[in-house]
Amino acid sequence: MLSETLAGLGRFSADGPGVTRFAYDDHWCDAQRWLAGRAVELGLTATPDAAGNLFFHAPDVAPGTPAVLVGSHLDTVRHGGLYDGAYGAVCGLLVAAELRDRKDLPVVGMVTAEEEGSRYSGDMLGTRAILGRMSPTELDTMRDEAGISWRDALRHAHERDCATSLAAGARPCPVMFPPAAMIEIHIEQGPVLESERLAIGIVEHIVGYRRLRARVRGEARHAGTTPMRLRKDALAAAAEMILAVENEAREMGEPAVATAGHVTAEPGLYNVVPGASEVWIEMRHVDVEKVAALEASVTARCRSIAARREVDLDMERVAGLEPAALSTPMAREAESLARELGVAHRRMVSGAGHDAMLFAAAGVPTLMFFVPSRGGISHAPDEHTDPADLWTGLRFLLEFARRMTIVPEAV
Amino acid sequence: MLSETLAGLGRFSADGPGVTRFAYDDHWCDAQRWLAGRAVELGLTATPDAAGNLFFHAPDVAPGTPAVLVGSHLDTVRHGGLYDGAYGAVCGLLVAAELRDRKDLPVVGMVTAEEEGSRYSGDMLGTRAILGRMSPTELDTMRDEAGISWRDALRHAHERDCATSLAAGARPCPVMFPPAAMIEIHIEQGPVLESERLAIGIVEHIVGYRRLRARVRGEARHAGTTPMRLRKDALAAAAEMILAVENEAREMGEPAVATAGHVTAEPGLYNVVPGASEVWIEMRHVDVEKVAALEASVTARCRSIAARREVDLDMERVAGLEPAALSTPMAREAESLARELGVAHRRMVSGAGHDAMLFAAAGVPTLMFFVPSRGGISHAPDEHTDPADLWTGLRFLLEFARRMTIVPEAV
Repeated sequence: MLSETLAGLGRFSADGPGVTRFAYDDHWCDAQRWLAGRAVELGLTATPDAAGNLFFHAPDVAPGTPAVLVGSHLDTVRHGGLYDGAYGAVCGLLVAAELRDRKDLPVVGMVTAEEEGSRYSGDMLGTRAILGRMSPTELDTMRDEAGISWRDALRHAHERDCATSLAAGARPCPVMFPPAAMIEIHIEQGPVLESERLAIGIVEHIVGYRRLRARVRGEARHAGTTPMRLRKDALAAAAEMILAVENEAREMGEPAVATAGHVTAEPGLYNVVPGASEVWIEMRHVDVEKVAALEASVTARCRSIAARREVDLDMERVAGLEPAALSTPMAREAESLARELGVAHRRMVSGAGHDAMLFAAAGVPTLMFFVPSRGGISHAPDEHTDPADLWTGLRFLLEFARRMTIVPEAV
Repeated sequence: MLSETLAGLGRFSADGPGVTRFAYDDHWCDAQRWLAGRAVELGLTATPDAAGNLFFHAPDVAPGTPAVLVGSHLDTVRHGGLYDGAYGAVCGLLVAAELRDRKDLPVVGMVTAEEEGSRYSGDMLGTRAILGRMSPTELDTMRDEAGISWRDALRHAHERDCATSLAAGARPCPVMFPPAAMIEIHIEQGPVLESERLAIGIVEHIVGYRRLRARVRGEARHAGTTPMRLRKDALAAAAEMILAVENEAREMGEPAVATAGHVTAEPGLYNVVPGASEVWIEMRHVDVEKVAALEASVTARCRSIAARREVDLDMERVAGLEPAALSTPMAREAESLARELGVAHRRMVSGAGHDAMLFAAAGVPTLMFFVPSRGGISHAPDEHTDPADLWTGLRFLLEFARRMTIVPEAV
């Protein structure tokens, strides 16, 4: 049932290799409705909130009840795989179904909206809404590449039964189930568990990140008649910045990573020296001070390159999250459960951001589990986890949630 | 009349800064038809050929008559200026009008189609058609970014009265006026005449160029969980190539130039290490051997970067022209005319490609004149030439054409 459900979700995708399902688009709405249908077959009620998050709960657990939220997201990067997000979302549904008769501390499955930031670079819009941390102005200021506001995207999702109407006033998305605790299971997206032949990673920390947009402005000039010494080539400056990003992370050493993921050149012709260029930069580190240091050194290097080449540079931080420490008491519980069940495991750090980090930052007792990713591959069509590992993860998550009958203390 | 006509042509443009008029599009057709209307007002006949080139001639000079062709192009780069091409095209019209009674060696104004290669990177499609050097298969294989074939673009131009129907067989574009000689006047697009306070440049040589498309393929991976040492980052490799292009031209020294004008990154997101990147590269030199050496060294550097970074590289030459020597006898005539008229002048090289270079390469006696470009700027909205310089150029061109009553020998 698990692999079939994941394969079933994979059909909801834009054209192109792998799975492309951006928050609130038609493919995403189809996936949300399809999974809601499976929830109903399993005896659950599927309830969306105003931000497009979806909750799977026993019919007699009314919205407003504090609950343990178990889940992940269904939106993907462009040309992503079958497992990132979807695995955790399906596991949340199955655990909620299995534990649907529990009344003391209800377990509610959860699908968050826009975790990847592929459409709206808004630091996990859906989860922020669950935590009461969305601002009403963002509904109109946040826009996708086509200029569609978050409000209009939600209106579309509402028409597809994937969101309720927005409320008026300062709280446009009322909190559906106040989180007493949060658990997320996810593919590792890295090579550690596979290389160490482990089935479960118990995630104690999640890296923080910064996203910067660098806009370079030089002078568009004729590529044949402008001598090299008189050029202000925006793309050549951008190329130096791309290499500086890579170099700063290498110099800081692991686990620092820094990536230039996107670049443009204007006007983008063979015979014109580029007059403008834009570079998208991301840096991550598990240490609060190191992620700030990485941002500072990359920014300084880019400014120095721009000054030397006499081009204008505008650097803007478009998103950022601090590293997050998850619940140590929950991690200890998970470790003793793993030993009891004989599941090969380790404690580890997540190099990827996840919804869980926002719950932890908000003071919600939170834990994450990883299952192995073949070749450490993710955000790509060839993302894969063995069905046996998928099952081990689900069973471990279920047993952990079953035993969690009191709210653990926050970190 | 000259400045007004150029300003009048500038209205025919796509939206955005400056002038954007791509061959065969509606703005270009409007410009061609508008200039044809001016020709008729001046007592000339305006006759297009099957490739969209346009000829201004006395009504009694029948197609098929060998003639001195005087002109340039009306298509532009994206966000170009008022003068590049248009100045020479208008001067060709005015000279043909002034000399329309001459019967011994008719002077015909000419507007060539698709000189810039902004829409079809086909090495000056229009001029190649005039010289009988277009191949019928190109009509279908040559496509613009939207996938529109050259044949379909010409069909559109034909519907707009900007091209005749294509002929069947091996010669789809019959030659309208066999070129006995060719003269082109153009803005310099460089800083030499302005800095030396000269009015006229007599162009003896035109640089040759190569255009290469480099396609890099690495591995698209999660930007948070993939350690720097395990990445095959296509964009970082492309960035090194962009800097290598710049460096190779600097090392060879002036007048070598090399430009990376365009770059892409796939999938182009903050949180994915780019798996693919494409770079557009152009190199120019006036020396046949040096342009080949530049192409070889840039290619070798890119291959070495790809090998070191373990990414795949596909390098393809998409266009190229050898440097061209123009007519030395005509240049000598022009120099003595300039001395006689007291026009401040110099012999020089063109760093930009022009229709004239194809005529010269085909053995047609050919000469070019330059007028100053303010700040050396071109291929940009702020391209400018003083009206006084525009007039000096036109009068010099007219006098030169008036005196050219016999066909000069080819180089």
